Amino acid sequence: MSQIANASLNPSDVTAGADGPQAAVAAVSAMADRARTASRVLARADRNWKDRALLAIAAALDEKRARIIAANAKDIEAGRANGTSDAMLDRLKLDDRRVDALIAALQELAGLPDPVGTVLRGQTLPNGLRLRQVHVPMGVIGAIYEARPNVTVDIAGLALKSGNAVLLRGGTAAAASNKALLALIRDALESVGLPADAVASVDAYGRDGADAMMGARGKIDVLIPRGGRELIQRVVTTAKVPVIETGEGNVHIYLDESADAKMAVPILLNAKIQRPSVCNTVETLLINAKSQAAGQVLAALAKSGVRLHVDERAAALAGDTPTVPAVDADWDTEYMDLDLAVAVVDDLDGAISHIRRHTTGHTEAILTNNLAHAERFIAEVDSAAVIVNASTRFTDGGQLGLGAEVGISTQKMHARGPMGLRELTTTKWIVQGDGHVRS
Amino acid sequence: MSQIANASLNPSDVTAGADGPQAAVAAVSAMADRARTASRVLARADRNWKDRALLAIAAALDEKRARIIAANAKDIEAGRANGTSDAMLDRLKLDDRRVDALIAALQELAGLPDPVGTVLRGQTLPNGLRLRQVHVPMGVIGAIYEARPNVTVDIAGLALKSGNAVLLRGGTAAAASNKALLALIRDALESVGLPADAVASVDAYGRDGADAMMGARGKIDVLIPRGGRELIQRVVTTAKVPVIETGEGNVHIYLDESADAKMAVPILLNAKIQRPSVCNTVETLLINAKSQAAGQVLAALAKSGVRLHVDERAAALAGDTPTVPAVDADWDTEYMDLDLAVAVVDDLDGAISHIRRHTTGHTEAILTNNLAHAERFIAEVDSAAVIVNASTRFTDGGQLGLGAEVGISTQKMHARGPMGLRELTTTKWIVQGDGHVRS
Repeated sequence: MSQIANASLNPSDVTAGADGPQAAVAAVSAMADRARTASRVLARADRNWKDRALLAIAAALDEKRARIIAANAKDIEAGRANGTSDAMLDRLKLDDRRVDALIAALQELAGLPDPVGTVLRGQTLPNGLRLRQVHVPMGVIGAIYEARPNVTVDIAGLALKSGNAVLLRGGTAAAASNKALLALIRDALESVGLPADAVASVDAYGRDGADAMMGARGKIDVLIPRGGRELIQRVVTTAKVPVIETGEGNVHIYLDESADAKMAVPILLNAKIQRPSVCNTVETLLINAKSQAAGQVLAALAKSGVRLHVDERAAALAGDTPTVPAVDADWDTEYMDLDLAVAVVDDLDGAISHIRRHTTGHTEAILTNNLAHAERFIAEVDSAAVIVNASTRFTDGGQLGLGAEVGISTQKMHARGPMGLRELTTTKWIVQGDGHVRS
Repeated sequence: MSQIANASLNPSDVTAGADGPQAAVAAVSAMADRARTASRVLARADRNWKDRALLAIAAALDEKRARIIAANAKDIEAGRANGTSDAMLDRLKLDDRRVDALIAALQELAGLPDPVGTVLRGQTLPNGLRLRQVHVPMGVIGAIYEARPNVTVDIAGLALKSGNAVLLRGGTAAAASNKALLALIRDALESVGLPADAVASVDAYGRDGADAMMGARGKIDVLIPRGGRELIQRVVTTAKVPVIETGEGNVHIYLDESADAKMAVPILLNAKIQRPSVCNTVETLLINAKSQAAGQVLAALAKSGVRLHVDERAAALAGDTPTVPAVDADWDTEYMDLDLAVAVVDDLDGAISHIRRHTTGHTEAILTNNLAHAERFIAEVDSAAVIVNASTRFTDGGQLGLGAEVGISTQKMHARGPMGLRELTTTKWIVQGDGHVRS
C-alpha cells in the first residue's frame, strides 16, 4: 500500500487537518490551481490519449485489485467497529465483482465518442464572418459524494473522458478505499503522460475540505453532489460554486380510466420492483376512480411483496388485497424500498394537480389509451422526463442512449434529466474574420 | 396614471414595506405562486398568441407614451433632487426616441421564431420506445436590475416570447417609470386573454423584495441579474436560486508579430471607440515585442482620443504618442470609457498567460497572419468568445444571429456568451411506449 499511497501525496497534504477551515481553504485553492493547469493539458488531449488513460486505469484496477480490496477491508472493519448498518456496509464494500464492474464501465467509457470539439451550430454571416459554437470542457469539476468508493473511479473516468480535471471529496467511511483508488488513478494518468493533478482529493481536509470546495467560486467551475437528500440540499443551499442538483425522485404513475390491466400490471411491477432503491422507481400510484384495472394492479403488486399505503378510496378499490392506511407524509416520501403510496383521483386534472403538489420534477408517467389525455399529460406535467405507457425505469442515461450517465439532474439549468458526457462540457464561440469591424 | 397604476395592484401589494423581510418573503412567495399558475398558461400558448401580446404591449407604449414619459419625469426630478449624476440621469431617462426603440424591439421580437417546442434530439430505440428531447419554458424567471427602466419592457418581452412568467425587481431610482410600464404590460396581457400575473414586480418590497427573490429556491427557476459588477456579485454569491451571471468583460486583444497595421488599426478603433461603455469593448491591448504595427496602432488610438495606460516597454513603442504609465490595477479594470491598458509581451505564450491572469472569460481576440498562432489562441484561451482578426464588438446576440439578446453569460453552466431566447428555456424528455418495461 505505501507505494501507491505515496503517489497520491502532494505538498498540501502535509497540512492535513492541522489548522482547520482556513488551512483547508488555502490548500483546496492550491489544489484547484494545480487542477486548472492539468485541465489545460486534458482540454487539448485528443480522444485516443484520454481513452488510453481510461484503459490504463482499468488495467491497474485489474492488476492491483488485491490491494484495493485490502484497503476496502480496513474501511469495512472500521465501519463495523463504529456500528455502521449492514446496508451501509454493503454500499461501502468493494469485492471482485464490483471491481470487475468498474473495469467494464471504464472500458465502455473508452468506447464512447468524445463530446469535446463537437460543433453545436455554425454559419457564415452575410458579412463573411465565420462562426461556430463548439463543445469544450468545463475545466475543473468538483464532486462531493458519500460512502460508495466506486463513485471515485466512476466520476474520475467521466471527468477525464470529457476533458475535465476533477477534485473529489468522498465519504469519510470510505477513506482508505478512496485513497488507494486515487493513488492508482494518478499513477495510471502519469503512465500515459497525463498530469496526475487532473484527479485529486480533498479528503485529507475532511468536512473543511468539502466546505472549501463549495466556496471556491472561480476556481471550480461546477460542483456535482452525489448522495442522499441531506447531502444534496446542503451543497445546493451552501455552495457559491454553480451546482448541478441530481437525484431525488418522488416518481408518480397515473393509471388513467382507459388503461387495461394487461399493460398496467407489467409496467407497475417493473417500475416498483426491479430496483426499488434507485431514483427512477415509482413511489406513488394515482388511480382514476373509474379504473377497471385497479383491483388487478393492486393485487399483483401486493403479491410481489409491495406494501401498499392507501388512501380511503384506494382501500376500497383494493378489496381483499392487504394494505396499510396512508398518512400525509406518504405523498412526499421517496421510499427507495418495496413501498408504494396509492391515491384515487377523480380524473386527469386531479392526477396533474396531485403531481404538481408532490413532484420532485424527476419522472412521471401516464398509462392510458386516450390520446388527448396523453397529450395533456405530456404538456402539463413539468418534469425532466414524462412517460406514456412505459416504465419509469427508462429515465436512465444508458437506456436513453446517452452512454455513460453522470447522474440525473432535477434542475432546469444546464442539464435536465439523465446527464451524459456532453453535459460535463460547456461551449465556446469561435469567430473568424479577415479584418472585420462592426458597422 | 391612477387607472393604469391600479391595474398593477395585487393583494400582496397592500403590505408593501410594512413588516420588513418576513413580510417580503411571504409576499414574494405568493407572487411567485401566482406567476407559476400564469406560467402554465404561457407554456401552452402558441407563438401567435404570445406575439399578439408583444404587439399589444408595443401598441400600448405608443398610445400611452405621454403617461410613461410623465411618470419617468417624476423619477428624473427625484433623481435630480437627490444629486444623481448626469450620466445616471441619462440612463434613467425615457423620451420619445427611447420609447420608439422599445416598440421596435418588441416588434422585432414578435418576428422571431419561438424556441418552445423545438426538438433538440430524438430517436426510436431498438426496443421501439420513442424518445424526444424538447425545449420547454423554464417556468418562472426572476430579473434583478438597476436604473434603466427600458429593461422592464425588454425582459418582460423576452420572458413572454420564451413562454415564461417573470418577477421583476428594478432600481428604486426608476420606481415611477417601472410602475407605469408594469401596469401597461399587465393591461396588454389581459387584453389578449393572457394572465396579468405572468409579469409582476416586487418593487413594493424594496431591497427585501430582491432578497426574497434570491432565497425563493423552488419558486423561481432562474435569476438573471443585469447591472454593474456589485449588483451581479451580490446576486451570484447570495442567491439560493440558480443564477445566470452576465456582463463583466475585461476584454483583451493580442497584436501578434505577424499582424499588419492595415488590419489592426481599424479593428482596434472599432473595438475601443464605437461604444466604450459596453462589455464587448476592448480594455487591454497586448502587443508582441516585435510588432511593426505597434507605433501606428497606438498613434491612431491616441489621435481618436483614447488614453493609453502603458507599461514601460509599451511606452517605448509609443514614441511621441502621449501615454500615461499603467499601474497594477489597470490590468483588471473594465474602464467602460476611452481608456486602454497596453502591455508588451514577448510572444504568444506571454499573451496567453497575461490573459489567464486577468480575463473575466468574456471575449478575447488575436490579430495575426500566423495560422499556428491563431489555432493555439483558439484552443488555449478559455473565454465565451474567441475571435481571430475581427473586432471584439461582434460578441453580441444580434451580431451572431441569435436574434434578441438576453445578456452575455460569463459563466460556463447552461449558457455561455450571448444568450438568445433558447437560453431562457430548459428541456423535457418525452418517452412514449406501448407497454414497454425495462429488462
